[in-house]
Amino acid sequence: MDRRKFLKGSALLSGILAINPIDLLANTADVLPKGKRKAKNIIFMVSDGMSSGTLAMANLYSQNILGRNGYWINLYLENKVSRALMDTASASSIVTDSAAASSSFGGGFRVKNGVLNIGANGEKYMPIWQKFQKAGKKTGCVTTVTITHATPAGFCVNSASRNAEPEIAKMYAHIGFDVMMGGGDEFFNPAKREDKKDVYGLYRQKGYQILKDRSALQNIEKGKKVLGIFSTGALPYAIDRSNTVDLQSTPTLAEMSKAAINQMKDHKEGFVLQIEGGKVDWSAHANDVSALIHDQIAFEEAVKVAVDFAEKDKNTLVIITTDHGNANPGTIYGVDSTKKFNSISDYRFTNEYILNAIHPDFNLQQIKDWIYETNKLSLANDEAKHLLSFYNSLEKEDGLYNYKKLPFKLYSEIQKNHNSVGWISMDHSGDYVELAMFGPGSELLKPFVKNTELHYLMLEATELDR
Amino acid sequence: MDRRKFLKGSALLSGILAINPIDLLANTADVLPKGKRKAKNIIFMVSDGMSSGTLAMANLYSQNILGRNGYWINLYLENKVSRALMDTASASSIVTDSAAASSSFGGGFRVKNGVLNIGANGEKYMPIWQKFQKAGKKTGCVTTVTITHATPAGFCVNSASRNAEPEIAKMYAHIGFDVMMGGGDEFFNPAKREDKKDVYGLYRQKGYQILKDRSALQNIEKGKKVLGIFSTGALPYAIDRSNTVDLQSTPTLAEMSKAAINQMKDHKEGFVLQIEGGKVDWSAHANDVSALIHDQIAFEEAVKVAVDFAEKDKNTLVIITTDHGNANPGTIYGVDSTKKFNSISDYRFTNEYILNAIHPDFNLQQIKDWIYETNKLSLANDEAKHLLSFYNSLEKEDGLYNYKKLPFKLYSEIQKNHNSVGWISMDHSGDYVELAMFGPGSELLKPFVKNTELHYLMLEATELDR
Repeated sequence: MDRRKFLKGSALLSGILAINPIDLLANTADVLPKGKRKAKNIIFMVSDGMSSGTLAMANLYSQNILGRNGYWINLYLENKVSRALMDTASASSIVTDSAAASSSFGGGFRVKNGVLNIGANGEKYMPIWQKFQKAGKKTGCVTTVTITHATPAGFCVNSASRNAEPEIAKMYAHIGFDVMMGGGDEFFNPAKREDKKDVYGLYRQKGYQILKDRSALQNIEKGKKVLGIFSTGALPYAIDRSNTVDLQSTPTLAEMSKAAINQMKDHKEGFVLQIEGGKVDWSAHANDVSALIHDQIAFEEAVKVAVDFAEKDKNTLVIITTDHGNANPGTIYGVDSTKKFNSISDYRFTNEYILNAIHPDFNLQQIKDWIYETNKLSLANDEAKHLLSFYNSLEKEDGLYNYKKLPFKLYSEIQKNHNSVGWISMDHSGDYVELAMFGPGSELLKPFVKNTELHYLMLEATELDR
Repeated sequence: MDRRKFLKGSALLSGILAINPIDLLANTADVLPKGKRKAKNIIFMVSDGMSSGTLAMANLYSQNILGRNGYWINLYLENKVSRALMDTASASSIVTDSAAASSSFGGGFRVKNGVLNIGANGEKYMPIWQKFQKAGKKTGCVTTVTITHATPAGFCVNSASRNAEPEIAKMYAHIGFDVMMGGGDEFFNPAKREDKKDVYGLYRQKGYQILKDRSALQNIEKGKKVLGIFSTGALPYAIDRSNTVDLQSTPTLAEMSKAAINQMKDHKEGFVLQIEGGKVDWSAHANDVSALIHDQIAFEEAVKVAVDFAEKDKNTLVIITTDHGNANPGTIYGVDSTKKFNSISDYRFTNEYILNAIHPDFNLQQIKDWIYETNKLSLANDEAKHLLSFYNSLEKEDGLYNYKKLPFKLYSEIQKNHNSVGWISMDHSGDYVELAMFGPGSELLKPFVKNTELHYLMLEATELDR
C-alpha cells in the first residue's frame, strides 16, 4: 500500500514520470507543502453530547421535514472535510464528563471527570486559548449554555471543579478573552451572586462592552472586547425559542457565532473561537427528541456560518465534533417507523415546557388535550393516567439539568410508542464520536484519534508548536 | 478548496511545477490512474446489525481485557483504509431489515423490508454475485448464521420473501456458487426438510464436496466447489463456543474465511466473497453484551484474515461494514463505569445459554449461585426474585431469534446495573453506520454514501461497468 514508494521507484527507474503530474493532484487536498497550509484562525465547534444517532436523526429530519440535507452531513456529500472517529475517555473513566472532555482538547491532557485542566498531582495544564492569546491571537467562546460552563471553561481556565462558575466568571475577565457570549447572568449580576459582587462592573473596568439581548448584537462596537450574557442560566432550547415570541430577544447560536467571527476576523494575528451547542447535551439528558433534533439543527446552522466564513477566508481551520455521546438515541425498526419519526415535526415545545405546565389537578381529558395541543399526540387512556399519576405522587425524577424534577423519563417512554425513538439511559455514553475538519490543518487529521490529540493538532496547524 | 484548479493554474502560468511531483504522492493513495487500481477480487464483510457502540465496545474490550486494539480500529490507527458513513434505509422504511439491506448492496436498488432483490412492481434486480459469476469470477459466501439467511441471500438470489430458506438452499445449487459455508442443516437435510428433499444430494450431483465439521475444513479438495454446513440453525455464539468443548467441532468465522479465500484465490479471473458475522445482530436483538462483544471480536478476526490476504495479494478490495445498526448499545456514565464494563470479561456464556438452564423449581440461592457461576455477578435478592418470577409466570418474552422465549430483556436490565451498558430497544436502528475499505477501488469511496452505492462501486472497482 505504500504507493509513494512504488511510484518513486518506478518513476526513477524509468527516468520519467509516466503520469501527468497535474493529474496526480485531483482530490489530494493534503499534498501541499506544510508552509502553504498554515491556519491563521481556528473555529472549534462542539455539539455537546452528540451521539452518532443524534447526527443521523437531525439529518433525517432535515431531509424529511425541511427538504434539504443537514449542514453537517452536507459537508460530507460535498466532499469538503476530513473525517475521523474520536475516543473521548477521561483520566478517570471510559465515559467522560464535559469538563474532562474539554480539558482533553483544551489542555492536551486527560484529567479526572469534573476537573478543568488540573492533573492528578495538581499539575496545571495551560488552556489552549491562553496559549493562543499569548501568541497574539484574539480569543473567544460562544455557547447556548452558561458561558462559564465546562466546555468553554476547558479551553480557558484551570479549576479543580467545573462547578466553580461564579469564580470562572471573574477569571475570564482577568485573563481577558476577546469575545465571550452565552447565558449565565447569575454569575455576573450582583443581585444574583451570593457574594453580591458586580462582575459586570469588573468587565467594564477591563474595557469590555456588555451585551444583554439579541438587538445589542447588531450594534457591537468594533475593536472593543465583548461580554454577551443573554439569559439567566442557559439560553432557551431552539424549539421553544421558535414558538415563543418572548424568547426571541435571545440570539441563536448562529447569530452569536457570526457576530463573534465578525468581531475578530480582521485581527492581523488571527483569532480562535469555540462554538458550543450545549443544549444538545441537555436534551439528551432529558431524553427529549424534539429538543435534541432542533438544537442539533441550530448547531449545524452555526456550522454553516463557520464554514461559509472559512471558505471565503481560506486561512481558517474549522473543527466540528462533540465531546462525548449521550444516551445513544436512535430510530427503531417497526411498522410505520418513518411515519412515527416524522410525527416529531408536530411537536411544538420541549418536554420541559410541556411537563412543567401540567398540574396535579388536571383531569384525564385536560392532560390529553394539552399533550395533543403541544405534541399533536393522542395519548391512550393508560398513558394519560400514567403521566398524571406522577403529579399526584411523592416520587420525583432526578437527573442532570432536570431542575424542576419533571417526569422526563416517564414521558419519553410514552413518546417512544408514538415516535419510534429510543435511548439507552439519561447520561453520557463512551461511544467513539464523529469528528470533521475543514480548511488548512485538516490534512493533519488521522482516521482515529484520542481527544487529547486535537490539542496538539491545533498547535501544529497554526505552527505554534515551532 | 479546489487545489487542483489552483495548482494547475499556478503551474501552467509559471511554466514549471514549483513542487517536486514525487512529493505530491505522499499519503495520496487515490491518485493513480484508474487502470492501475483495478480490483481483481472483492471480499465484502458485514458485521450484521453493528451499531457504532458495538464497534467501540469491542475495541475497548480488546484494549482493556485482551491488551491490544481491535483489528477493525487498528486499520484506522495504521491509516490503511478509506472510511465513510453509510445511510442504510430501505424502500419501505428509515430502518431496514437485513434482506432489504443486503439487496441494496447486492442488487443496487432499495427494496421493501423482507424482500430479496425484487422491486415494487416485481422487477428482478440481478444479484451481484451472479454478475461476477457471469464475468468469470469465483463466488462465495461464509456466515455464522444459516447460509440461506438474508445477508448472503441478498448477494445471490431473487426472492419475494427472505423466509424462503428451504427454496434458497436449492437455488444456490442451481446457480452454482463456488464456496458456501455456514449453518442451516435443516434446509439441506432430507430428514429435517418438510418436503423430505435431499438437497445435499442435489449439490453432490452438481459436483460439490460437502463439509460437515471443522476438521473437514483441513481437507478441502482444491478445484471442487464447496458446500459447508456446520450446524442446524446458526453456528454457536463465539463465547459459548470458547467455553464449550462440544461446540468446537464447528469452525470459527475466521477459519471459514481463510478456507474460502484459499479455495478461490488462485482463480485466474479472480473471486468475490461475502463474509458475514451474523450473530452480532442476534446478540443485539437479545441485548446480550457479552455475546455481542465476543461475536464482534470473532468478526474482526475474520477482518484480519481478509486484510492480511489482501495486503499480500495487492489485487483485492476489502469492504468492511454493517448492514444497519441494532439496539445502539453503549457504555453509560457513572461511578465505576470502567470497572463495571470490564466485569463483562467474567461472563462465561451467552444469556441464551444461562437463562435456558434456569428452571421454575430453582430456589433463590440456586439462581444466585448459577448467575455467579456463569457471570461472576452477585445478584441482589430483588434481582434474583425478579428473574425467578419470570419462570413461574405465564408471561413470556417474544423477540426475533428468541426461539425459547427466554427473559432476555428482563435479564439484560439486571445486567445493566452491574455492567453499565444500555440498549435503546431489541431491534434494528436507523443510524448511519461505519464503512471502511482497503485496497484497489477504495479510492472511489465518498465520505457519505447510500447503501446502494456500494453495488456500483464494486462494479466500477472491478471494471465490470465498462
